[in-house]
Amino acid sequence: MVSRRGRGRPPGDSDARERIAAAATHEFGEHGYDGATVRAIAARADVDPALVHHYFGAKADLFAEVAGFPVRPDVEVPAILRGGPHGAGERIVRFVLEAFERPDVRKRGVMVLRTAISGRLTGPLVTGFLTLELLPRIANELDAPDAELRATLVASQIAGLIIARYVVKLPAMRDAEVDELVALVGPTIQRYLFD
Amino acid sequence: MVSRRGRGRPPGDSDARERIAAAATHEFGEHGYDGATVRAIAARADVDPALVHHYFGAKADLFAEVAGFPVRPDVEVPAILRGGPHGAGERIVRFVLEAFERPDVRKRGVMVLRTAISGRLTGPLVTGFLTLELLPRIANELDAPDAELRATLVASQIAGLIIARYVVKLPAMRDAEVDELVALVGPTIQRYLFD
Repeated sequence: MVSRRGRGRPPGDSDARERIAAAATHEFGEHGYDGATVRAIAARADVDPALVHHYFGAKADLFAEVAGFPVRPDVEVPAILRGGPHGAGERIVRFVLEAFERPDVRKRGVMVLRTAISGRLTGPLVTGFLTLELLPRIANELDAPDAELRATLVASQIAGLIIARYVVKLPAMRDAEVDELVALVGPTIQRYLFD
Repeated sequence: MVSRRGRGRPPGDSDARERIAAAATHEFGEHGYDGATVRAIAARADVDPALVHHYFGAKADLFAEVAGFPVRPDVEVPAILRGGPHGAGERIVRFVLEAFERPDVRKRGVMVLRTAISGRLTGPLVTGFLTLELLPRIANELDAPDAELRATLVASQIAGLIIARYVVKLPAMRDAEVDELVALVGPTIQRYLFD
Protein backbone atom coordinates (compact mmCIF):
# COMPACT_ATOMS: atom_id res chain seq x y z
CA MET A 1 0.00 0.00 0.00
CA VAL A 2 1.06 3.52 -0.71
CA SER A 3 1.26 5.96 2.15
CA ARG A 4 -1.53 8.53 2.00
CA ARG A 5 0.13 11.04 4.27
CA GLY A 6 0.48 14.34 2.49
CA ARG A 7 1.66 16.35 5.47
CA GLY A 8 5.06 16.24 7.13
CA ARG A 9 8.51 17.31 6.07
CA PRO A 10 9.58 17.21 2.45
CA PRO A 11 10.58 13.64 1.50
CA GLY A 12 14.28 14.15 0.89
CA ASP A 13 15.24 16.82 3.41
CA SER A 14 18.77 16.65 4.62
CA ASP A 15 18.15 14.95 7.96
CA ALA A 16 15.58 12.44 6.68
CA ARG A 17 18.23 9.71 6.52
CA GLU A 18 19.18 10.23 10.15
CA ARG A 19 15.52 10.35 11.20
CA ILE A 20 14.93 7.04 9.43
CA ALA A 21 17.95 5.42 11.12
CA ALA A 22 16.82 6.65 14.54
CA ALA A 23 13.25 5.46 13.88
CA ALA A 24 14.57 2.07 12.76
CA THR A 25 16.64 1.68 15.93
CA HIS A 26 13.54 2.47 17.97
CA GLU A 27 11.18 0.18 16.04
CA PHE A 28 13.63 -2.75 15.96
CA GLY A 29 14.22 -2.32 19.69
CA GLU A 30 10.50 -2.21 20.46
CA HIS A 31 9.14 -4.89 18.13
CA GLY A 32 12.13 -7.11 17.36
CA TYR A 33 13.53 -7.83 13.93
CA ASP A 34 10.45 -9.81 12.95
CA GLY A 35 7.87 -7.32 14.24
CA ALA A 36 9.39 -4.08 12.95
CA THR A 37 8.10 -2.99 9.53
CA VAL A 38 9.39 -0.50 7.01
CA ARG A 39 5.93 1.15 7.08
CA ALA A 40 6.09 1.72 10.84
CA ILE A 41 9.67 2.97 10.61
CA ALA A 42 8.66 5.40 7.86
CA ALA A 43 5.67 6.62 9.88
CA ARG A 44 7.85 7.20 12.95
CA ALA A 45 10.40 9.12 10.83
CA ASP A 46 7.58 11.04 9.16
CA VAL A 47 8.64 10.06 5.63
CA ASP A 48 7.18 7.98 2.82
CA PRO A 49 8.14 4.25 2.95
CA ALA A 50 9.62 4.66 -0.53
CA LEU A 51 12.22 6.99 0.94
CA VAL A 52 13.28 4.30 3.42
CA HIS A 53 13.84 1.93 0.51
CA HIS A 54 15.58 4.68 -1.45
CA TYR A 55 18.09 5.36 1.31
CA PHE A 56 18.52 1.89 2.82
CA GLY A 57 17.07 -0.82 0.54
CA ALA A 58 15.17 -3.70 2.15
CA LYS A 59 14.55 -4.23 5.87
CA ALA A 60 17.61 -6.51 6.11
CA ASP A 61 19.80 -3.76 4.63
CA LEU A 62 18.39 -1.17 7.01
CA PHE A 63 18.98 -3.46 10.01
CA ALA A 64 22.53 -4.29 8.91
CA GLU A 65 23.21 -0.56 8.67
CA VAL A 66 21.83 0.48 12.05
CA ALA A 67 23.24 -2.62 13.83
CA GLY A 68 26.70 -1.80 12.44
CA PHE A 69 27.26 -5.01 10.45
CA PRO A 70 30.71 -4.62 8.87
CA VAL A 71 29.98 -7.28 6.22
CA ARG A 72 26.75 -8.81 4.96
CA PRO A 73 26.81 -12.57 5.52
CA ASP A 74 23.16 -12.75 4.43
CA VAL A 75 24.24 -11.48 1.00
CA GLU A 76 27.77 -12.85 0.66
CA VAL A 77 27.37 -16.44 1.88
CA PRO A 78 24.43 -17.30 -0.42
CA ALA A 79 26.41 -15.69 -3.28
CA ILE A 80 29.36 -17.97 -2.47
CA LEU A 81 27.04 -21.00 -2.44
CA ARG A 82 25.64 -20.06 -5.83
CA GLY A 83 29.21 -20.48 -7.12
CA GLY A 84 28.68 -24.24 -6.76
CA PRO A 85 29.36 -26.80 -4.03
CA HIS A 86 32.97 -27.53 -4.96
CA GLY A 87 35.20 -25.89 -2.35
CA ALA A 88 32.29 -23.85 -0.97
CA GLY A 89 33.26 -24.61 2.65
CA GLU A 90 36.77 -23.28 2.14
CA ARG A 91 35.48 -20.23 0.25
CA ILE A 92 33.12 -19.35 3.12
CA VAL A 93 35.86 -19.69 5.76
CA ARG A 94 38.23 -17.60 3.62
CA PHE A 95 35.58 -14.90 3.11
CA VAL A 96 34.99 -14.64 6.87
CA LEU A 97 38.66 -14.67 7.86
CA GLU A 98 39.79 -12.23 5.17
CA ALA A 99 37.03 -9.85 6.24
CA PHE A 100 37.95 -10.11 9.95
CA GLU A 101 41.65 -9.61 9.22
CA ARG A 102 40.71 -6.00 8.33
CA PRO A 103 40.80 -3.97 11.58
CA ASP A 104 37.64 -1.96 10.77
CA VAL A 105 35.62 -5.13 10.07
CA ARG A 106 37.08 -6.91 13.10
CA LYS A 107 36.23 -4.08 15.47
CA ARG A 108 32.60 -3.78 14.39
CA GLY A 109 32.14 -7.51 13.88
CA VAL A 110 33.35 -8.32 17.39
CA MET A 111 30.96 -5.69 18.72
CA VAL A 112 27.96 -7.19 16.89
CA LEU A 113 28.94 -10.69 18.05
CA ARG A 114 29.33 -9.60 21.67
CA THR A 115 25.95 -7.88 21.48
CA ALA A 116 24.29 -11.04 20.18
CA ILE A 117 25.76 -13.12 23.00
CA SER A 118 25.59 -10.64 25.87
CA GLY A 119 21.91 -11.17 26.56
CA ARG A 120 21.26 -7.44 26.53
CA LEU A 121 18.13 -6.16 24.85
CA THR A 122 19.83 -5.99 21.47
CA GLY A 123 20.83 -9.67 21.55
CA PRO A 124 17.47 -11.07 20.40
CA LEU A 125 17.51 -8.59 17.52
CA VAL A 126 20.63 -10.12 16.00
CA THR A 127 19.12 -13.56 16.62
CA GLY A 128 15.97 -12.46 14.76
CA PHE A 129 18.04 -11.25 11.85
CA LEU A 130 20.01 -14.52 11.69
CA THR A 131 16.86 -16.62 11.94
CA LEU A 132 14.88 -14.67 9.34
CA GLU A 133 17.52 -13.47 6.90
CA LEU A 134 20.85 -15.32 7.06
CA LEU A 135 19.94 -18.93 7.83
CA PRO A 136 16.97 -19.32 5.44
CA ARG A 137 19.04 -17.85 2.59
CA ILE A 138 21.79 -20.39 3.21
CA ALA A 139 19.26 -23.21 3.66
CA ASN A 140 17.61 -22.14 0.41
CA GLU A 141 20.80 -22.98 -1.49
CA LEU A 142 20.93 -26.51 -0.01
CA ASP A 143 19.09 -29.60 -1.10
CA ALA A 144 18.45 -31.43 2.17
CA PRO A 145 15.46 -31.98 4.45
CA ASP A 146 17.44 -30.65 7.42
CA ALA A 147 18.80 -27.65 5.49
CA GLU A 148 18.07 -25.14 8.24
CA LEU A 149 19.87 -27.23 10.87
CA ARG A 150 22.82 -27.57 8.50
CA ALA A 151 22.90 -23.80 7.93
CA THR A 152 22.78 -23.30 11.70
CA LEU A 153 25.69 -25.72 12.22
CA VAL A 154 27.69 -23.66 9.71
CA ALA A 155 26.87 -20.52 11.69
CA SER A 156 27.89 -22.24 14.95
CA GLN A 157 31.36 -23.19 13.66
CA ILE A 158 31.93 -19.79 12.03
CA ALA A 159 30.87 -18.01 15.24
CA GLY A 160 33.14 -20.29 17.31
CA LEU A 161 36.03 -19.59 14.94
CA ILE A 162 35.58 -15.80 15.12
CA ILE A 163 35.23 -15.93 18.92
CA ALA A 164 38.31 -18.12 19.43
CA ARG A 165 40.52 -16.08 17.06
CA TYR A 166 39.32 -12.49 17.40
CA VAL A 167 37.39 -12.21 20.69
CA VAL A 168 38.89 -14.62 23.23
CA LYS A 169 42.14 -14.80 21.20
CA LEU A 170 43.20 -18.31 22.14
CA PRO A 171 46.92 -18.31 21.23
CA ALA A 172 47.06 -21.28 18.83
CA MET A 173 44.09 -19.89 16.88
CA ARG A 174 45.21 -16.25 17.03
CA ASP A 175 48.64 -17.18 15.66
CA ALA A 176 47.50 -19.54 12.89
CA GLU A 177 47.71 -18.46 9.25
CA VAL A 178 44.48 -17.82 7.35
CA ASP A 179 45.40 -20.57 4.85
CA GLU A 180 45.94 -23.07 7.69
CA LEU A 181 42.51 -22.31 9.18
CA VAL A 182 40.85 -22.46 5.75
CA ALA A 183 42.36 -25.94 5.26
CA LEU A 184 41.29 -27.14 8.72
CA VAL A 185 37.81 -25.58 9.05
CA GLY A 186 36.77 -25.52 5.38
CA PRO A 187 36.02 -29.28 5.28
CA THR A 188 33.83 -28.93 8.40
CA ILE A 189 31.68 -26.31 6.67
CA GLN A 190 31.64 -28.38 3.48
CA ARG A 191 30.41 -31.43 5.40
CA TYR A 192 27.70 -29.50 7.25
CA LEU A 193 26.47 -28.08 3.95
CA PHE A 194 26.61 -31.05 1.63
CA ASP A 195 27.34 -34.44 3.26
CA MET B 1 58.46 -23.99 50.40
CA VAL B 2 56.59 -24.24 53.64
CA SER B 3 54.92 -21.12 54.99
CA ARG B 4 56.72 -19.78 58.04
CA ARG B 5 53.89 -17.69 59.35
CA GLY B 6 52.99 -18.74 62.87
CA ARG B 7 50.57 -15.91 63.57
CA GLY B 8 47.07 -15.53 62.18
CA ARG B 9 43.83 -17.33 62.75
CA PRO B 10 43.76 -21.06 63.48
CA PRO B 11 44.15 -23.00 60.21
CA GLY B 12 40.75 -24.60 60.04
CA ASP B 13 38.45 -22.00 61.54
CA SER B 14 34.94 -22.03 60.20
CA ASP B 15 35.22 -19.09 57.81
CA ALA B 16 38.65 -20.02 56.41
CA ARG B 17 37.08 -21.57 53.34
CA GLU B 18 35.17 -18.39 52.54
CA ARG B 19 38.24 -16.25 53.17
CA ILE B 20 40.23 -18.42 50.75
CA ALA B 21 37.52 -18.12 48.07
CA ALA B 22 37.39 -14.33 48.51
CA ALA B 23 41.19 -14.10 48.41
CA ALA B 24 41.26 -16.26 45.28
CA THR B 25 38.72 -14.01 43.52
CA HIS B 26 40.85 -11.01 44.38
CA GLU B 27 44.19 -12.55 43.35
CA PHE B 28 42.82 -13.99 40.09
CA GLY B 29 41.28 -10.61 39.29
CA GLU B 30 44.48 -8.75 40.03
CA HIS B 31 47.10 -11.06 38.52
CA GLY B 32 45.18 -13.16 35.99
CA TYR B 33 44.91 -16.92 35.98
CA ASP B 34 48.58 -17.30 35.13
CA GLY B 35 49.92 -14.80 37.67
CA ALA B 36 47.84 -15.77 40.70
CA THR B 37 49.52 -18.32 42.99
CA VAL B 38 48.17 -20.55 45.73
CA ARG B 39 50.84 -19.06 48.03
CA ALA B 40 49.64 -15.49 47.45
CA ILE B 41 46.00 -16.56 47.85
CA ALA B 42 46.86 -18.29 51.13
CA ALA B 43 48.78 -15.23 52.36
CA ARG B 44 45.85 -12.92 51.53
CA ALA B 45 43.43 -15.29 53.31
CA ASP B 46 45.85 -15.56 56.24
CA VAL B 47 46.02 -19.36 56.11
CA ASP B 48 48.66 -21.94 55.28
CA PRO B 49 48.87 -22.91 51.58
CA ALA B 50 48.21 -26.52 52.63
CA LEU B 51 44.75 -25.46 53.79
CA VAL B 52 44.00 -24.06 50.31
CA HIS B 53 44.88 -27.43 48.82
CA HIS B 54 42.93 -29.20 51.54
CA TYR B 55 39.74 -27.27 50.80
CA PHE B 56 40.03 -26.74 47.04
CA GLY B 57 42.73 -28.97 45.52
CA ALA B 58 44.96 -27.50 42.80
CA LYS B 59 44.80 -23.96 41.38
CA ALA B 60 42.59 -25.16 38.51
CA ASP B 61 40.10 -26.64 40.98
CA LEU B 62 40.06 -23.45 43.03
CA PHE B 63 39.48 -21.33 39.92
CA ALA B 64 36.73 -23.61 38.63
CA GLU B 65 35.04 -23.25 42.01
CA VAL B 66 35.19 -19.47 42.33
CA ALA B 67 34.40 -18.91 38.62
CA GLY B 68 31.30 -21.08 38.98
CA PHE B 69 32.21 -23.76 36.42
CA PRO B 70 29.28 -26.21 36.42
CA VAL B 71 31.38 -28.99 34.87
CA ARG B 72 35.12 -29.51 34.55
CA PRO B 73 36.07 -29.78 30.88
CA ASP B 74 39.75 -29.73 31.87
CA VAL B 75 39.18 -32.99 33.78
CA GLU B 76 36.39 -34.65 31.77
CA VAL B 77 37.57 -34.14 28.19
CA PRO B 78 41.09 -35.57 28.72
CA ALA B 79 39.44 -38.50 30.56
CA ILE B 80 37.22 -39.12 27.53
CA LEU B 81 40.27 -39.01 25.24
CA ARG B 82 42.08 -41.55 27.41
CA GLY B 83 39.20 -43.93 26.56
CA GLY B 84 40.76 -44.21 23.09
CA PRO B 85 40.25 -42.40 19.77
CA HIS B 86 37.34 -44.54 18.53
CA GLY B 87 34.18 -42.43 18.79
CA ALA B 88 35.92 -39.83 20.97
CA GLY B 89 34.41 -36.91 19.00
CA GLU B 90 30.89 -38.18 19.56
CA ARG B 91 31.59 -38.90 23.24
CA ILE B 92 32.84 -35.34 23.79
CA VAL B 93 29.78 -33.78 22.07
CA ARG B 94 27.48 -36.05 24.08
CA PHE B 95 29.21 -35.16 27.36
CA VAL B 96 28.81 -31.43 26.66
CA LEU B 97 25.19 -31.62 25.50
CA GLU B 98 24.04 -33.96 28.27
CA ALA B 99 25.61 -31.63 30.82
CA PHE B 100 23.98 -28.52 29.32
CA GLU B 101 20.58 -30.22 29.14
CA ARG B 102 20.58 -30.00 32.95
CA PRO B 103 19.14 -26.58 33.91
CA ASP B 104 21.63 -25.96 36.72
CA VAL B 105 24.62 -26.66 34.46
CA ARG B 106 23.10 -24.67 31.60
CA LYS B 107 22.49 -21.61 33.75
CA ARG B 108 25.99 -21.47 35.18
CA GLY B 109 27.67 -22.60 31.96
CA VAL B 110 25.98 -19.85 29.93
CA MET B 111 27.07 -17.33 32.55
CA VAL B 112 30.73 -18.45 32.37
CA LEU B 113 30.63 -18.39 28.57
CA ARG B 114 29.09 -14.92 28.45
CA THR B 115 31.74 -13.71 30.90
CA ALA B 116 34.51 -15.06 28.68
CA ILE B 117 33.11 -13.27 25.62
CA SER B 118 31.82 -10.06 27.17
CA GLY B 119 35.13 -8.23 27.29
CA ARG B 120 34.61 -7.46 30.95
CA LEU B 121 37.55 -7.73 33.33
CA THR B 122 36.81 -11.34 34.13
CA GLY B 123 36.92 -12.41 30.47
CA PRO B 124 40.72 -12.78 30.23
CA LEU B 125 40.62 -14.95 33.35
CA VAL B 126 38.56 -17.64 31.63
CA THR B 127 40.85 -17.32 28.61
CA GLY B 128 43.85 -17.85 30.87
CA PHE B 129 42.27 -20.95 32.36
CA LEU B 130 41.48 -22.36 28.90
CA THR B 131 44.96 -21.61 27.62
CA LEU B 132 46.82 -23.02 30.62
CA GLU B 133 44.59 -25.86 31.82
CA LEU B 134 42.04 -27.10 29.28
CA LEU B 135 43.78 -26.86 25.90
CA PRO B 136 47.22 -28.27 26.92
CA ARG B 137 45.53 -31.23 28.61
CA ILE B 138 43.60 -32.01 25.43
CA ALA B 139 46.69 -31.41 23.27
CA ASN B 140 48.65 -33.71 25.57
CA GLU B 141 46.42 -36.63 24.60
CA LEU B 142 47.00 -36.04 20.87
CA ASP B 143 49.91 -37.16 18.76
CA ALA B 144 50.29 -34.29 16.28
CA PRO B 145 52.67 -31.36 15.80
CA ASP B 146 49.73 -28.93 15.72
CA ALA B 147 48.03 -30.51 18.75
CA GLU B 148 47.29 -27.19 20.47
CA LEU B 149 45.66 -25.75 17.35
CA ARG B 150 43.58 -28.92 17.02
CA ALA B 151 42.50 -28.69 20.67
CA THR B 152 41.58 -25.03 20.09
CA LEU B 153 39.50 -25.94 17.01
CA VAL B 154 37.61 -28.45 19.16
CA ALA B 155 36.96 -25.70 21.71
CA SER B 156 35.77 -23.34 18.94
CA GLN B 157 33.17 -25.78 17.63
CA ILE B 158 31.98 -26.76 21.10
CA ALA B 159 31.68 -23.09 22.11
CA GLY B 160 29.79 -22.33 18.87
CA LEU B 161 27.46 -25.26 19.51
CA ILE B 162 26.69 -24.15 23.08
CA ILE B 163 26.16 -20.54 21.97
CA ALA B 164 23.85 -21.48 19.07
CA ARG B 165 21.76 -23.92 21.12
CA TYR B 166 21.69 -22.50 24.64
CA VAL B 167 22.61 -18.80 24.41
CA VAL B 168 21.36 -17.38 21.10
CA LYS B 169 18.89 -20.30 20.74
CA LEU B 170 18.75 -20.47 16.97
CA PRO B 171 15.53 -22.45 16.38
CA ALA B 172 16.87 -25.36 14.28
CA MET B 173 19.65 -25.97 16.80
CA ARG B 174 17.48 -25.40 19.86
CA ASP B 175 14.91 -27.92 18.61
CA ALA B 176 17.33 -30.65 17.48
CA GLU B 177 17.65 -33.89 19.46
CA VAL B 178 20.88 -34.53 21.36
CA ASP B 179 21.45 -37.70 19.29
CA GLU B 180 21.05 -35.76 16.05
CA LEU B 181 23.63 -33.17 17.12
CA VAL B 182 26.02 -35.87 18.34
CA ALA B 183 25.80 -37.52 14.90
CA LEU B 184 26.34 -34.22 13.05
CA VAL B 185 28.99 -32.54 15.21
CA GLY B 186 30.80 -35.64 16.55
CA PRO B 187 32.66 -36.27 13.26
CA THR B 188 33.85 -32.63 13.21
CA ILE B 189 35.44 -33.04 16.64
CA GLN B 190 36.84 -36.43 15.62
CA ARG B 191 38.46 -34.90 12.52
CA TYR B 192 39.97 -31.97 14.44
CA LEU B 193 41.43 -34.37 16.99
CA PHE B 194 42.76 -37.19 14.85
CA ASP B 195 42.69 -36.60 11.07
